Amino acid sequence: MEKYEMTIAGCKRELPVCRINENLSIAAFIMFGDVEITEKSATELMKIVPEHDIVITAEAKGIPLCYEMARIGCRQYVVARKSKKLYMKDSISVSVKSITTDNVQSLYLSGDKANLIKGKRVLVVDDVISTGESVAAVCELVNKAGGNIVGKACVLAEGDAINRDDIIYLNPLPLFFDN
Amino acid sequence: MEKYEMTIAGCKRELPVCRINENLSIAAFIMFGDVEITEKSATELMKIVPEHDIVITAEAKGIPLCYEMARIGCRQYVVARKSKKLYMKDSISVSVKSITTDNVQSLYLSGDKANLIKGKRVLVVDDVISTGESVAAVCELVNKAGGNIVGKACVLAEGDAINRDDIIYLNPLPLFFDN
Repeated sequence: MEKYEMTIAGCKRELPVCRINENLSIAAFIMFGDVEITEKSATELMKIVPEHDIVITAEAKGIPLCYEMARIGCRQYVVARKSKKLYMKDSISVSVKSITTDNVQSLYLSGDKANLIKGKRVLVVDDVISTGESVAAVCELVNKAGGNIVGKACVLAEGDAINRDDIIYLNPLPLFFDN
Repeated sequence: MEKYEMTIAGCKRELPVCRINENLSIAAFIMFGDVEITEKSATELMKIVPEHDIVITAEAKGIPLCYEMARIGCRQYVVARKSKKLYMKDSISVSVKSITTDNVQSLYLSGDKANLIKGKRVLVVDDVISTGESVAAVCELVNKAGGNIVGKACVLAEGDAINRDDIIYLNPLPLFFDN
């Protein structure tokens, strides 16, 4: 199988299927570049997520969705960065392992952004939630900053995330096992 | 000096001033999280950029601007990635040095995205253009992919970029030298 066809927020798309290891392939959902699916997914998600003051995502694939949800909704968002920049004073950090890269990464928030989410109702968003490790890292960062997580939302839930009752999503995305 | 006040696309903002080395400080412009300035900057830039088929930026700070310009304009954009993901087949790459990080990075485009910009009128965008190294890397990537660069646009031009006649920008941003 090279493509997996699905309809997401009313948009029909063919997702490329990529081999992760000898037993497992995944369908890759790349929102980057797809304005239509970003707008429509954000609109659909906004109907089902709890009330919130601010949206947060981890750099980088979830940024357009996070921006769009903030744009049409609460008007405030934060991006947890993958590296600590010179302009990020008093930053806080956590560690995270990604399934689409082969190394452990860290996530950072500047002191200003940490203060911004302190005491706020925070909605964590991403394009895809799969193992949940990335979202867990963002949640840890929000907790460190003193924010109150009111929900975790994504466009596609994959694998274990499909059956989690704490994740709000538009569509399930199957994993493709050989055998 | 700790803050530098300026009005960008009608929005008054205080930019934090950060020391880069013993002689130089820069004002940091962080569009991440600022929905209003992203919307208004995109609208103002769209009035002065040349006609184009697709917008491109380098991960990550320019992504919301790039998305917003595509959303209100040509509806197509591409993000040059900082790392090569498993789902990026037949990717092309170039090297780049950032002034806000201390190491050399690479930029990548998947084969699909390279094909998408081939023969298209491509507008390169970023939040800030300063040394121009990041934009030059994106341009090299576009050239490798066979795209036709019709313009380079940013919200703020800093340092040498202020006097370049090939860069379209809304505001100049001074560098702060000690004496």
